[in-house]
Amino acid sequence: MNRLVLAQIDTIAGNIKYNAEKIINCINKAKENNADLIIFPELVLVGYPFGDIIMRHKSVIEKQLAALEEIASNTQNITALIGFAEPTNAADKKPFYNSVAVVQNGKIINIIRKRLLPNYGEFNDYRYFEPSKEVSELLEINGEKYGILICEDSFNDKSFFKDECIYNVDPVAELMKKHPTTLINCSCSPSRTGKEFMKNSLFSSIAKKYKVNYIYVNKAGYADNLSFDGTSRIYNKNGELTLRAKSFEEDFIITDDYTGTINTLPIGMDKEIKQNKFDLDYTYDLDRTYKSIVFGIKEYFKKNGFKKAVLGLSGGLDSTISCVLLVDALGKENVFGVSMPSRITSQASKNDAKILAENLGINFIEIPLAESIDATKNMLNYAFDNINTDKYEKSTTIENLQARTRATLLWSIANEHKNMLPIATSDKSEAYIGYATVNGDMSGGFAPIADVTKTKLFALGDFLNKNRTQKNAIPQAILEKPPGAELKINPKTGKTVCAEEDNMPYPFLDEIIWYVENYGYGFNDFINHNFFFEKNNPVSKEQKEEWLNKFFWKQHCAVFKWHIIPPSVVIDMHSINSVEYRQPIISKVY
Amino acid sequence: MNRLVLAQIDTIAGNIKYNAEKIINCINKAKENNADLIIFPELVLVGYPFGDIIMRHKSVIEKQLAALEEIASNTQNITALIGFAEPTNAADKKPFYNSVAVVQNGKIINIIRKRLLPNYGEFNDYRYFEPSKEVSELLEINGEKYGILICEDSFNDKSFFKDECIYNVDPVAELMKKHPTTLINCSCSPSRTGKEFMKNSLFSSIAKKYKVNYIYVNKAGYADNLSFDGTSRIYNKNGELTLRAKSFEEDFIITDDYTGTINTLPIGMDKEIKQNKFDLDYTYDLDRTYKSIVFGIKEYFKKNGFKKAVLGLSGGLDSTISCVLLVDALGKENVFGVSMPSRITSQASKNDAKILAENLGINFIEIPLAESIDATKNMLNYAFDNINTDKYEKSTTIENLQARTRATLLWSIANEHKNMLPIATSDKSEAYIGYATVNGDMSGGFAPIADVTKTKLFALGDFLNKNRTQKNAIPQAILEKPPGAELKINPKTGKTVCAEEDNMPYPFLDEIIWYVENYGYGFNDFINHNFFFEKNNPVSKEQKEEWLNKFFWKQHCAVFKWHIIPPSVVIDMHSINSVEYRQPIISKVY
Repeated sequence: MNRLVLAQIDTIAGNIKYNAEKIINCINKAKENNADLIIFPELVLVGYPFGDIIMRHKSVIEKQLAALEEIASNTQNITALIGFAEPTNAADKKPFYNSVAVVQNGKIINIIRKRLLPNYGEFNDYRYFEPSKEVSELLEINGEKYGILICEDSFNDKSFFKDECIYNVDPVAELMKKHPTTLINCSCSPSRTGKEFMKNSLFSSIAKKYKVNYIYVNKAGYADNLSFDGTSRIYNKNGELTLRAKSFEEDFIITDDYTGTINTLPIGMDKEIKQNKFDLDYTYDLDRTYKSIVFGIKEYFKKNGFKKAVLGLSGGLDSTISCVLLVDALGKENVFGVSMPSRITSQASKNDAKILAENLGINFIEIPLAESIDATKNMLNYAFDNINTDKYEKSTTIENLQARTRATLLWSIANEHKNMLPIATSDKSEAYIGYATVNGDMSGGFAPIADVTKTKLFALGDFLNKNRTQKNAIPQAILEKPPGAELKINPKTGKTVCAEEDNMPYPFLDEIIWYVENYGYGFNDFINHNFFFEKNNPVSKEQKEEWLNKFFWKQHCAVFKWHIIPPSVVIDMHSINSVEYRQPIISKVY
Repeated sequence: MNRLVLAQIDTIAGNIKYNAEKIINCINKAKENNADLIIFPELVLVGYPFGDIIMRHKSVIEKQLAALEEIASNTQNITALIGFAEPTNAADKKPFYNSVAVVQNGKIINIIRKRLLPNYGEFNDYRYFEPSKEVSELLEINGEKYGILICEDSFNDKSFFKDECIYNVDPVAELMKKHPTTLINCSCSPSRTGKEFMKNSLFSSIAKKYKVNYIYVNKAGYADNLSFDGTSRIYNKNGELTLRAKSFEEDFIITDDYTGTINTLPIGMDKEIKQNKFDLDYTYDLDRTYKSIVFGIKEYFKKNGFKKAVLGLSGGLDSTISCVLLVDALGKENVFGVSMPSRITSQASKNDAKILAENLGINFIEIPLAESIDATKNMLNYAFDNINTDKYEKSTTIENLQARTRATLLWSIANEHKNMLPIATSDKSEAYIGYATVNGDMSGGFAPIADVTKTKLFALGDFLNKNRTQKNAIPQAILEKPPGAELKINPKTGKTVCAEEDNMPYPFLDEIIWYVENYGYGFNDFINHNFFFEKNNPVSKEQKEEWLNKFFWKQHCAVFKWHIIPPSVVIDMHSINSVEYRQPIISKVY
């Protein structure tokens, strides 16, 4: 049998020099190990996802084609599969094919072109690529016959997807007529809730159905809000998993007989996700969520030349979870926590923030905001006395001022370092209803938890306390108190207003979000919907309608904010992250 | 002949109730005028552009189909062409067709489906729509035979586009085989530099070539960073223009014989734009730029329920031009100018801001920032003394603090009103190199000039002084002084640093931008490029390389900021606005 290498690597969009060097290093290492064939992920040379850069910057493509020649010249006695954007050079076709070059002994001996071009969710293949109509030639090495597929080409199996096939062609079925002994799938497949179970079932069933070995090589990396989990693997002709690379980490796997280490998956990632019900049980997805985000932070910082992060620690859930994720991604010495109490911040919040910082061992400082806020308030009062305002009684000016002063402070601290980013700590539940301040807590260089809902964050907090090497780093008080921004006092109670008073119970809110994202529910669908929340908390019809009206109105007003969410990591099956979903600000969906 | 109505209207994405009412009102008005046929723009019922809302929110589509029935029930004795998103109801097709329903006497009597689906620049048709392969049936009314096209279907004429046809089919040629006497094109075509000349030449040549009347009905409105100019029109069988609706304004045109008023175009809009050279001559595009932006501001504010704008007036070019555009869009009584001098703001700047405000008659106030900035500086000094910073000597902390304090003030003033938006005044030249402050001058609810370069803004200033009803509203001093943010002092001169010292001459910078956008130039292409700037300003090879290196490096670092530019109006042939061009933050293009 041939000695194969699965090169589960990450490359950078448009950075051809970096990508080519990385690829050549892998090829040289494979040659030192006497490998016969080295397999890279889809579009490895140009770097995926690349947005629109290949449409505008012709030098990227020129450099890419030169680099492909250079890579080819490094393939004495080895074959390499190199994904690249291949110009079609035809006005009446899309500008590129999504291709894999088969390079061997200094030459490009064949080119495989992708046939099925996904153009939904985070995928925009058809914006750039011409679909190939041809069944590709097999690659023969020492008598072994390889059929090569590119990602989506393997996702239209009729026996698996049945009525849900979205293409008219099944490239696998057509390729199998040429009788390959092994299928190779070069992919760039980002991690989303529930996707691993689907992929595992699909690949295994294809291997079994056709009695063929199935090799899947996926990118492990982060780009443009997406964490790619890697988790490359091989199935034998019985559909059994015989090898699995690491998840959320680059890997370099050598195998002689299609077997090797089967690395463990993040906890729960192999479970089938029942899509029909929302039940607050997130156990299947917490470890994957954690690893996706930590990997995302790590890669985003590294690739942009940053090392350190500064964030506000309010003693609340969002900043706490964000802080733990940053520590695990960047190291405690690179995380700077700042407690920024205003006049209405409680002593308990200050204490919780401090204990968290001590537990984690991060850099910590408390900076009271009162002096700065008072001075700015004086300035505002002068303005409001001298300019004709509405004296708008529902104004959130002073609440927002606290959040904005905090953000100014964090950006200033980051400015004072060469390689530090401030962190936006707002979460997905709040993003949906715009319960975060522009230029305030939603401002930053990265937003780690922007696609994690509040109820899931509570579950994640428990999970982290139980499963991190350091147990119980998060003070229990933080996981038990009701969330609240501590930006205003309720005149009736004299206490700061908690978020659920302003909005609605988080389990109810998160359930709305879940059905909107997964089933496209509108207002009317919810009126007769039995909320999981209602099992233990009876909700009157009027109350339900009030909350639903509030949700849809607040969501309507929040769309502007979705457009300026800092870079994050898409986590759920669906999201409002612009990498997947774009809604014009001028629009109405209810 | 039949009496026709060209309903050049605007609708809102997903707001089916509003859209249907508007359409029915138009139909009723057409019936009162005894019209035989009323023509609406492409996708008028669902509202274009709609981003991804039709993919996620099934209630939008349900409501749309119900509304189409209701509209049909209003068509006694009239025929109406209603663009809508038609579900394909087939798993192996895209979810929708881009269709026009022909409704008549209470019934949908035919459906025309779009064949050519643009998927470049601001267009994403293929993400949602299945291309039709069929030639549509003609619509016959009183013996007149109409062939109906949807926008791009008319943009693949071989004699016009020659080698640059991007599709294999020409729907016009195929439709003409059925011998219609009149072609009708239902469109949603946004305004961009140079586009009007191309459309006029194309439609005229098609009418002449086939000896057919040609009716073009386009949306007039604003959505999602795009200004749609309307400018619907009719050509006779000789290719002569016989009627033209208003530009950048809704219109309702009744015609019995294909003739009517030929409204004038914005100055220069009918000129052919020579694409091969950059020459600082913007005269062909200033009126269109002005009208696009004013229309954009007006519609954005109206559709989102805002009436007033507040902006900082620095006495510089960007805030000055922004202010004039706001006054012309919203009325002087709705514009609030705030002069916010810091300790280093010059008296001249303060005077210029004040004179501008007086000339325009807007609300004006001067609010000195010193007290607030000093208090925040104290807070920062406390932070920097107590947290381990790099004491980064190139830090821009204090420069940025001024910009951020200004933004906080503007957002606060806006918060204090029910219907006011703060304005981001940064321009395109600065956006390219990131010469604007996050949470500072690039923050706001709308960014009127984000796609206008600095040299064009100077030309626009002159144009406005000459062409507005009120002449010379802009103080000449503002149009003559070198641009600068006045955020720092040059220790050598004791004066504030002007922008060209920090960066490079604006004519040089804007020429780089122009060739990057229009020709995809990279660093190496520029090295041997003769800049127009060099004609009168010799530039050494070293200087040129320094400026180019500076541009490409600053552009590289600025990509993050492009992702958070507030809603704006796309103006140039190409832009970095995310509606057209998306670049991942993790990427490298040089």
